[in-house]
Amino acid sequence: MRLATILVDGTSRAARVDGGTYTALAAADVRELLEDPSWRTKAQEPGKRYTAAEVRLAPVVPAPGKIVCVGLNYRTHILEMGRDLPEYPTLFAKFADTLIGAHDDIVLPPESDSVDWEAELCVVVGATVRRATSGQAAAAIAGFTVLNDVSMRDWQFRTREWLQGKNFEASTPIGPVLVTPDELPGGVRPELAITTAVDGEEMQRADTGDLVFDPVALVEYVSTMITLRPGDVIATGTPGGVGHARKPARYLTAGSKVVTTIEHIGSLENTVRSES
Amino acid sequence: MRLATILVDGTSRAARVDGGTYTALAAADVRELLEDPSWRTKAQEPGKRYTAAEVRLAPVVPAPGKIVCVGLNYRTHILEMGRDLPEYPTLFAKFADTLIGAHDDIVLPPESDSVDWEAELCVVVGATVRRATSGQAAAAIAGFTVLNDVSMRDWQFRTREWLQGKNFEASTPIGPVLVTPDELPGGVRPELAITTAVDGEEMQRADTGDLVFDPVALVEYVSTMITLRPGDVIATGTPGGVGHARKPARYLTAGSKVVTTIEHIGSLENTVRSES
Repeated sequence: MRLATILVDGTSRAARVDGGTYTALAAADVRELLEDPSWRTKAQEPGKRYTAAEVRLAPVVPAPGKIVCVGLNYRTHILEMGRDLPEYPTLFAKFADTLIGAHDDIVLPPESDSVDWEAELCVVVGATVRRATSGQAAAAIAGFTVLNDVSMRDWQFRTREWLQGKNFEASTPIGPVLVTPDELPGGVRPELAITTAVDGEEMQRADTGDLVFDPVALVEYVSTMITLRPGDVIATGTPGGVGHARKPARYLTAGSKVVTTIEHIGSLENTVRSES
Repeated sequence: MRLATILVDGTSRAARVDGGTYTALAAADVRELLEDPSWRTKAQEPGKRYTAAEVRLAPVVPAPGKIVCVGLNYRTHILEMGRDLPEYPTLFAKFADTLIGAHDDIVLPPESDSVDWEAELCVVVGATVRRATSGQAAAAIAGFTVLNDVSMRDWQFRTREWLQGKNFEASTPIGPVLVTPDELPGGVRPELAITTAVDGEEMQRADTGDLVFDPVALVEYVSTMITLRPGDVIATGTPGGVGHARKPARYLTAGSKVVTTIEHIGSLENTVRSES
């Protein structure tokens, strides 16, 4: 099953996505849908249908209660950097005001001159869990989506905490859809190609099966400290190939098109523009 | 003016506090009150009155949209540690599920053996601002409260990002009341004694006028990257005297009583207990 949050007829609706058809559901967005324990049934109900041309995609979860982000999580990239595999996941947070839809513009704020891409597999939580066992964690995963953790590197490295480089307003596309684990090779531990292309040039390529801390492990770990709730998201980290680590460094510039793709889920396609 | 969020008659209400009297207002909590641009007038309205014995204090803002925390912000403490004053504030985040009321128990999770105190002056935002000037930032401060940024030091230092030591469920008392700047010496840059006592022994003592980045500067800085909204909070950092930095280190243990006080605002009084 594939779910989206769509903007249509002047309002926001959760929708089921079948091919190119969006069927409006009885919830304002995917978070509200997931808050109903019978969301899997509710998501199958009939409703008003729209074509892709008739809808605009909102962030797949417009206002998650928590956005937990993971750093340093692709095994191959960590090892090629000459580092040891970490014992614990590195976690930081985003605020919901950072999120934009899958096709919205990425706006370059005048305060930063080093805006970078980070393709990430993103877990969407579909149940309330605390101190989840592995089985409970797997069952609490509603599905997966794509997130581009757009990062202002100058702000990120102003201090030892990354938060301020990760929290510019309207910087972070998430979507286009949530795909349930049953539709994905690897299920709750998906094994999918993840790529970023800037103006058609491939910048990142990895396999989401290469995560040190897989989605189930991350739900277990985060829920050890705090309750995870429906609509909460965990961005699982980015592989090598970000612009800041290139020689010379390369950042997003106005007019560029960034396409972040995870196979079997879909693509974020965002045009970069200066803030007007 | 002094405001609180009270639990009474089985529900949550914003309340005006006059001496020992709580007057219920037409909002479910202080965030909902602040979301009304005419909150200062609305907060003066008459309502059902309760004594302190009749109410339980909820977190003064039970569900802020953002909890932004600042590290390393007391000038005297930074200099006595032999460090240079920072050019930028160090920022990290808490999730709302961490918050507890001013008199609730601090629960020691079995997963940590180094739970520490951090007294902080906390800004509560009362307007929507982005890229606030100094004047706009000052006007956007609804008032101040007290926050004890209880920290699980073992988790905090597992990785280079502090988040996981700062986000255990129900760990962080905030309250007892929001006090508007007009009632405080120093106004929007309050100059108030801040202290922590554990079982009657004073552990922290500083003056909130000693902040490197004062409340107005923090609202300006954070709003440069993201919109601040009514009910958002900024915890402005803690002075010297935390348990982790003592020789030998000292942590909270079951049965202890922690009292975190800012003069003219009030005290958090929390009993520490093991998780049952």
